[in-house]
Amino acid sequence: MTERKAILVVGAGDATGGAIAKRFAREGYVACVARRSADKLEPLVAEIEAAGGSARAFACDARVEEQVIEMVATIEREVGPLHAVIFNIGANVQFSITETTERVYRKVWEMAALAGFLTGREAAKVMLPRGQGTIIFTGATASLRGSAKFSAFASAKFALRALAQSMARELGPEGIHVAHPIIDGAIDTAFIRDTFPELYKRKEQDGTLNPEHIADTYWQIHCQPRDCWVHEMDLRPWTEKF
Amino acid sequence: MTERKAILVVGAGDATGGAIAKRFAREGYVACVARRSADKLEPLVAEIEAAGGSARAFACDARVEEQVIEMVATIEREVGPLHAVIFNIGANVQFSITETTERVYRKVWEMAALAGFLTGREAAKVMLPRGQGTIIFTGATASLRGSAKFSAFASAKFALRALAQSMARELGPEGIHVAHPIIDGAIDTAFIRDTFPELYKRKEQDGTLNPEHIADTYWQIHCQPRDCWVHEMDLRPWTEKF
Amino acid sequence: MTERKAILVVGAGDATGGAIAKRFAREGYVACVARRSADKLEPLVAEIEAAGGSARAFACDARVEEQVIEMVATIEREVGPLHAVIFNIGANVQFSITETTERVYRKVWEMAALAGFLTGREAAKVMLPRGQGTIIFTGATASLRGSAKFSAFASAKFALRALAQSMARELGPEGIHVAHPIIDGAIDTAFIRDTFPELYKRKEQDGTLNPEHIADTYWQIHCQPRDCWVHEMDLRPWTEKF
Amino acid sequence: MTERKAILVVGAGDATGGAIAKRFAREGYVACVARRSADKLEPLVAEIEAAGGSARAFACDARVEEQVIEMVATIEREVGPLHAVIFNIGANVQFSITETTERVYRKVWEMAALAGFLTGREAAKVMLPRGQGTIIFTGATASLRGSAKFSAFASAKFALRALAQSMARELGPEGIHVAHPIIDGAIDTAFIRDTFPELYKRKEQDGTLNPEHIADTYWQIHCQPRDCWVHEMDLRPWTEKF
Repeated sequence: MTERKAILVVGAGDATGGAIAKRFAREGYVACVARRSADKLEPLVAEIEAAGGSARAFACDARVEEQVIEMVATIEREVGPLHAVIFNIGANVQFSITETTERVYRKVWEMAALAGFLTGREAAKVMLPRGQGTIIFTGATASLRGSAKFSAFASAKFALRALAQSMARELGPEGIHVAHPIIDGAIDTAFIRDTFPELYKRKEQDGTLNPEHIADTYWQIHCQPRDCWVHEMDLRPWTEKF
Repeated sequence: MTERKAILVVGAGDATGGAIAKRFAREGYVACVARRSADKLEPLVAEIEAAGGSARAFACDARVEEQVIEMVATIEREVGPLHAVIFNIGANVQFSITETTERVYRKVWEMAALAGFLTGREAAKVMLPRGQGTIIFTGATASLRGSAKFSAFASAKFALRALAQSMARELGPEGIHVAHPIIDGAIDTAFIRDTFPELYKRKEQDGTLNPEHIADTYWQIHCQPRDCWVHEMDLRPWTEKF
Repeated sequence: MTERKAILVVGAGDATGGAIAKRFAREGYVACVARRSADKLEPLVAEIEAAGGSARAFACDARVEEQVIEMVATIEREVGPLHAVIFNIGANVQFSITETTERVYRKVWEMAALAGFLTGREAAKVMLPRGQGTIIFTGATASLRGSAKFSAFASAKFALRALAQSMARELGPEGIHVAHPIIDGAIDTAFIRDTFPELYKRKEQDGTLNPEHIADTYWQIHCQPRDCWVHEMDLRPWTEKF
Repeated sequence: MTERKAILVVGAGDATGGAIAKRFAREGYVACVARRSADKLEPLVAEIEAAGGSARAFACDARVEEQVIEMVATIEREVGPLHAVIFNIGANVQFSITETTERVYRKVWEMAALAGFLTGREAAKVMLPRGQGTIIFTGATASLRGSAKFSAFASAKFALRALAQSMARELGPEGIHVAHPIIDGAIDTAFIRDTFPELYKRKEQDGTLNPEHIADTYWQIHCQPRDCWVHEMDLRPWTEKF
């Protein structure tokens, strides 16, 4: 019996995480998908299975150390070795500095940075003995520059970028590929469609990022031979200002 | 009676914070100096007063919102308006990613980023109605790049840099000068002298940063007219590799 | 009769340029390859044709405006529309600042920057009316940071990066994809094999970049749908320090 | 007789270069000022002398190697040792990529980068044996990012930044301080006053950079002790977006 390869997508609730899970499932990976509420993962799991793939849902609050440890252990024990771990939790909020509460500043960091640290560290622990694996952290425009009203979000995304850089430099020579793609533009989601019809019109002209194309890129990153690894790359629609 | 100007230095325990307090005190500012234990501030306060300046010590855990709020309120009420607030807490630790505990990752962030956010936000609140003031966050090499064993520290320093950038863009047009000098090299401290005699030898050839020279730079930043403000600058000894 | 798509590789002499030409030829593109001496292109053209592809050699000094204009016009007239143009000329030299002659400083810039400008501008001219096309400039470590003895080379590579950024921002909304991959490491070439046997040993452990893998990445960049374009990405072997 | 210290300002025609020359002259330096036409330097020399300072005008096309060599030799021989050399030539032009002629692309580089290289190299040659000196290259917004219509200017300013970085890393440990301040905003000049009255209104609210304040910063950079050197710093008016 052949051992099955597993991928874990933490933050599989939005369009991007789901598309990545489906993309890897199509290639034969068991897509382990995680978000706080497992209920919301049911349609994704069903979709993957209907397409002939394998998936498994995990209810996990990735800000809680024990839950992340337990989830990774379960996957390794019951599903198969993790070949790829994707951290994809966003926490985009906008507040002026004086209106940013301590609770918001802390919570955004816990979601976008601390959870990334816990996910990345547990991934590293199981990958290191095998000397291989891919860990991808999803970045955003706010990973590269702070802006008015972005104190909390930019702080968290900068922190995640520092984590990705530090892990890449530490784990690369151990055979683990750590990458940090930066999504610089609006992603085509139901939320955007329903809430910002104006923005959605851009989609007709490819002005929003198609989650499936992001997923293709993540798959390509995972497939890179180890002599030719990317660490950081920006992704944006052709019409996006930058 | 002339109103006295106040400066607050959060993290006045190390050589740099103390030197900044003394520099501003020499210019007539009341140096409000803060660290967790007020006892350790006594020599600094005594030194400033012996030189004819005014100083006041605050026991404050800058990670705790209420303590920061209370300290800033007390200064504004009892000392004078804050014209400059310096956030100077470091938290340099080194651990490989797999040996970085959740507690360390969180604590380093609380000290180097959350405390900076609380300090910066409270400074902004009292400065905004006056349309002036200087807020300086001390950066480090790890503010600009992650490295092996620096996951926790670089994450926190990146977060602080994002905060400084976001606040600068938001508060600059309100008349508040936010700067983020980056100290790239070893600072001449008693700790270095006693613990790393090898490194200390560099001092003889100006290979370590003199805290008084850093303090001069902070004073210059504070004095810049508003048509010519620096946001980010790197500072290092002539022999430092970069 | 179907119109054939053309790709132009300027600087097809080294391993990377040749591999890119072969990669696109395999996909059905007519590989137009250029370097100063057409003689040296014969083996590459022969190899592409032996594999069933189409190629055409151009003797062109890309520092000379008229030669670049003429070459692009010839391709458009006789071969087919240019869908991709790759600028891949390097000019890596090392001299201390005082030993860098005006001639070297100028020549390195002419090869690595001016030739890139001429190539990019002529590519833009033929692509703009069609509203599509890919232009890729090959970057290096020296595109991102200057170093001792790298005044000339870093100046030229920085200039090329500025060109790529400016063109991307200007031409993206016109449908033209401008990318700037940064090769951060030694490429596996005959030159390295013969001259630096020590470095070549790294190859056995994937410590040098395989030109074919770089070429795969360039092909992927060219294939990206316009809602999900990369502008800049770094590529390096797993063991490379950065 | 005390030997007089000399400063050389290449590009002393605009407001900034002139202000720097005056600032150093006020401190007792002989201000050697250079631009292509010596006639235009007469008012500046007269102003410095009227204020009790010393100045000397040099007609020099800094793009021409022999002229730069000759000028530096003359200063060292007839005036005194060069303690500071400031390269301040701009060449801001805006053209779309397809409308940028080879002549423009080359000329902008010759003015903003090649001339900087020649000036910096000759400065290094006379400073190295003395193990001290300050070399400052003036940067601009376009030193950090390319933009639509800025292919030529950004290419040249990026090149100058690479030169500054390379020289700083090479010459710092030799005792020579190389800095690259980045002016990010409109400078208050007669040209702006006469041509853009709208922009000039900003001046009333400190929305344009006062050349004298830039000059103060350059003087501060020159005065930094060698344990605490800045390499790069950004300067902008409080209202400037960034």
